[in-house]
Amino acid sequence: MNKLTELKCKACQSGEAPMSQTEIADLKSELPDWKIVDIGGVARLEREYKFDDFAQALAFTNKIGYLAEAEQHHPAILTEWGRVKVSWWTHKVKGLHRNDFIMAAKTDDAVKMEPADMHAYR
Amino acid sequence: MNKLTELKCKACQSGEAPMSQTEIADLKSELPDWKIVDIGGVARLEREYKFDDFAQALAFTNKIGYLAEAEQHHPAILTEWGRVKVSWWTHKVKGLHRNDFIMAAKTDDAVKMEPADMHAYR
Repeated sequence: MNKLTELKCKACQSGEAPMSQTEIADLKSELPDWKIVDIGGVARLEREYKFDDFAQALAFTNKIGYLAEAEQHHPAILTEWGRVKVSWWTHKVKGLHRNDFIMAAKTDDAVKMEPADMHAYR
Repeated sequence: MNKLTELKCKACQSGEAPMSQTEIADLKSELPDWKIVDIGGVARLEREYKFDDFAQALAFTNKIGYLAEAEQHHPAILTEWGRVKVSWWTHKVKGLHRNDFIMAAKTDDAVKMEPADMHAYR
């Protein structure tokens, strides 16, 4: 299990200093399947997951929704037939926060979990 | 109720002739809140809906998922805190099909419906 999945999100404040490049590189190394993309000058963590049909993709979207509500940190989730693209970033810091790396690691875990087991994250 | 919501999707074939501009304009007039966008040369019908929180947005995503499975025609759904962007298009015709206008009208209906009432679409 990725060590990040054991952490909880911490409330962040507007104007909080953004992560250093060293810290980003350190946490990113824990998430080899994620990429950092720039959307309008705001860095996001992004990953696409593949599924066999629409129902499985939507079920995963709901598992991510459960995580998001549990941590009160919410991503963008693009659901299509056979795939889900997830993007994590932090509005308040206009980019990446340590919370986003924690949530990305938990998202990787959630894809392998049964919906009924998701309460472990509550 | 929009007349389009009373229609069912019909199976379409690869290579089927795309809709004429007249037919698109006629059906688009039934969907004033939707816009036609071009994504990589493929026309899509797109609309963003606003909600008060993430849970309501995700609940709507699931209602759209119910519609999509009922008609076996699937959109792209972008779910975020307080908003859902829905895009309908038809892969087989590389653009818009009459089915997409039918699904957009049903999506407009679904936003007002209780989840338990969605079986009306089955």
